[in-house]
Amino acid sequence: MARIRVAVNGFGTIGKRVAEAILKQPDMELVGVVKTKPDYVAKHAVSSGIPLYTLSDRLDAFREKNIPVEGSLEDLLEKVDVVVDATPGGVGKEYKPLYERFGVKAIFQGGEKPEVAEVSFNTLCNYEEALGKRSVRVVSCNTTGLLRSICSLSRIAKIKKVRATMVRRASDPKEVKRGPVNAIVPNPVKLPSHHALDVKTVLPTLDIVTTAVVVPTTLMHVHIVFAELEDQVSREDIVATFEQTPRILLADASLGLTSTADLVEYARDLGRKRYDIPELVIWLDSIAVLGREVMWMQAVHQESIVVPENIDAIRAVMEAAKSAEETIRITDETLGIMHGRIP
Amino acid sequence: MARIRVAVNGFGTIGKRVAEAILKQPDMELVGVVKTKPDYVAKHAVSSGIPLYTLSDRLDAFREKNIPVEGSLEDLLEKVDVVVDATPGGVGKEYKPLYERFGVKAIFQGGEKPEVAEVSFNTLCNYEEALGKRSVRVVSCNTTGLLRSICSLSRIAKIKKVRATMVRRASDPKEVKRGPVNAIVPNPVKLPSHHALDVKTVLPTLDIVTTAVVVPTTLMHVHIVFAELEDQVSREDIVATFEQTPRILLADASLGLTSTADLVEYARDLGRKRYDIPELVIWLDSIAVLGREVMWMQAVHQESIVVPENIDAIRAVMEAAKSAEETIRITDETLGIMHGRIP
Repeated sequence: MARIRVAVNGFGTIGKRVAEAILKQPDMELVGVVKTKPDYVAKHAVSSGIPLYTLSDRLDAFREKNIPVEGSLEDLLEKVDVVVDATPGGVGKEYKPLYERFGVKAIFQGGEKPEVAEVSFNTLCNYEEALGKRSVRVVSCNTTGLLRSICSLSRIAKIKKVRATMVRRASDPKEVKRGPVNAIVPNPVKLPSHHALDVKTVLPTLDIVTTAVVVPTTLMHVHIVFAELEDQVSREDIVATFEQTPRILLADASLGLTSTADLVEYARDLGRKRYDIPELVIWLDSIAVLGREVMWMQAVHQESIVVPENIDAIRAVMEAAKSAEETIRITDETLGIMHGRIP
Repeated sequence: MARIRVAVNGFGTIGKRVAEAILKQPDMELVGVVKTKPDYVAKHAVSSGIPLYTLSDRLDAFREKNIPVEGSLEDLLEKVDVVVDATPGGVGKEYKPLYERFGVKAIFQGGEKPEVAEVSFNTLCNYEEALGKRSVRVVSCNTTGLLRSICSLSRIAKIKKVRATMVRRASDPKEVKRGPVNAIVPNPVKLPSHHALDVKTVLPTLDIVTTAVVVPTTLMHVHIVFAELEDQVSREDIVATFEQTPRILLADASLGLTSTADLVEYARDLGRKRYDIPELVIWLDSIAVLGREVMWMQAVHQESIVVPENIDAIRAVMEAAKSAEETIRITDETLGIMHGRIP
C-alpha cells in the first residue's frame, strides 16, 4: 500500500517535532517541510536530509543564505495527500483556502479557532469522528492534557463536572521575549478561561470550568483537576485506569519525581531528544478520592504533547487506521511513547 | 489607660513588620524586640530606636559586633504584657513554657501547630473567640488570605464548600537558598493540602479542600477559589461585599492591574515601605458566578498580610478592643490599610 504523502507547513516548535515523527512512521512519507526563515533551524533541517520548501516570495532569501530549497509551498502541495499546518496560531486559517484549492487534507493546531476544521480532535476521545474528514484540528497542549485524563477517567465513571486550574509555563525554552520573569499572571483574568470551551469542542456535553495563571518557568504546564463523578469509584480503580491508558505516565513522588524539573531530568536521563515528554504525566500521590470527588495534578510538556495526536490525525483523515487503538499502537511504538508508572 | 507593653521575639520577615506596626499603635508600647543574629538588620533596628534584646547566650556575639543590646529575652519578658512570637516556624512552641513562666500572653504565628495556642485566629472570622485568651495563633499568610475572602462572602451566603488551589511564591525577595528557579512543584504532592486543615482551625465546620503548587516568583501568592453556595447570590452582591470588607482590595485588570507584578508596582508607587500589601487583593474581573458556584482569583502578599491580624490579636488577648470592628478601625487607620477598589 502506498505511503501517505505528508507536508508540514511551519517548522517551529510543533512543526519540527511532527516532521521528525512522520519520518518514523512506516505508513507515511515526509515529502517536505515549509519554513519562512533562512536560519540555523533551516540549515540544520537540510543537513538532516529533510526536504525544505518555503513561500514563493522567500525563495531568494534562502538562496542568499546558501540554504537549498526544493521549491515553494505550492510546489509541495502538488505532491502530498495531507498537510500538517504548524504555522503560528491564527495563521493557519489564512492557508486553508490554498490547501483546499490543491485538494489536500489539512491538520490544524489548537492555536486556530475550532471553525477552521470539520472536527476538533483528541485520539483517546473522538478518533472515529475524524475518519475521512477533510480537515481536523488537534487541540492545544493544555486541552490535550485535560482530554487525555478526562477521557481516561470516563472509561470507568460518568463525569458530572470538572473544575480545573492550569498553571501555565511563561515561555518555551528558546523564547527570550516572553514573561513573566517574576510574577504570577492570571491569564485570562476574567473567569472562566477559554480552555474549558476548547475541551467542549471535543466533549460538548461535559460540564467543565477552567481557570489559568502564567508563571515564570519554561519546562511544563501543571494542571490541578477537581472532578465530580456520578458514582463513587475507588482510588485503586482510578489509578489502574490511568495506568492502563496509553500516553499517560504516573509519577511517584516518593521516588523523587517531585516537580516538573524532575520529570524533565528523567526525560534527559532517558536520552530523549530535546527532553520531550509527549506523555501526560499524572502525579500518583496526588490522586485523591473524597466521596464522589476525585482530584489530581498533572504535568503537560507544551512542546511535544500534541505530536502523537498529529500523527494519529493524519491516519484518521486518510482512514489509514480504523480505530484509536490501531493508530496508537503504531504511533506509540515508533515514537517510544510510554504508559504506566515511571520509572 | 496604660498602654499594652509588647515584646516581639524574632525580628525576621514578620517580626520586623509587626514591631514597626506596634510602634504606630496609640494603645501599645514596643518594649523591645529579640534578635539572635548580630547582623545589618540588628544594627538598623538599633539606629531606628528600637530597643534590642537577644538570647542570654548571644549577648557576647552582639557586643563583639558593637551592637548595643538592652538585655536578654528573660529581661524583656519581665517588662511586658504580651509577646508576639515571630521565631521561625516550629520554634515558637519551644518558647511557650518560658512565656508562661513569666505570665506573659503570647501571640504565635501560623508556622506553629494549632495546639500551640488556645485559639487560631483571623480578625474577620473569630475575633471574639480570642478575647482574654492566654495564647492565640495567627494563621499563616495563605490561610489568612483564604479566611478573609471566605468570611467576607459568609456575610451574604452560606458556603456549602470551597475547593481552592494555591499558586505559591518560591521564596521571599531576600532569600537566596530557596527555589524553584525554573519548575512548578506540587507542594504537597499528596492531595489535599494541609491549608484546608488550617482554615478549619478557625472555621471547623467548613467543607474545604485545597491544593498547592510552588512556582518561581518572589512577589505574592495567588489563589484560585471555587466556592459553592447554599443559595444563589448575584455577582453584584458578591462584588459589593468584597468591596465593603476591610482589608480586601479589588483590582481592576482593565486599569492594568493584570499580575502580581502590577500590584507590587502600585504599592511602590504609593510609596509603601518595602512595597507591603497587607490587604488581600481580589481581581474584580475574575469574580464569576455560575448558578450557585462562585469563583475568583486573589493575591496574597506573604510578607505582610498577617501584620494587622497580629496587632488585633494583641488587643484581643488584652481585651483592649471588644469587637473586630473596633480593633480593625484602629489598626487599619494607623497602618494605612485600605479597602474597596484600587486605585
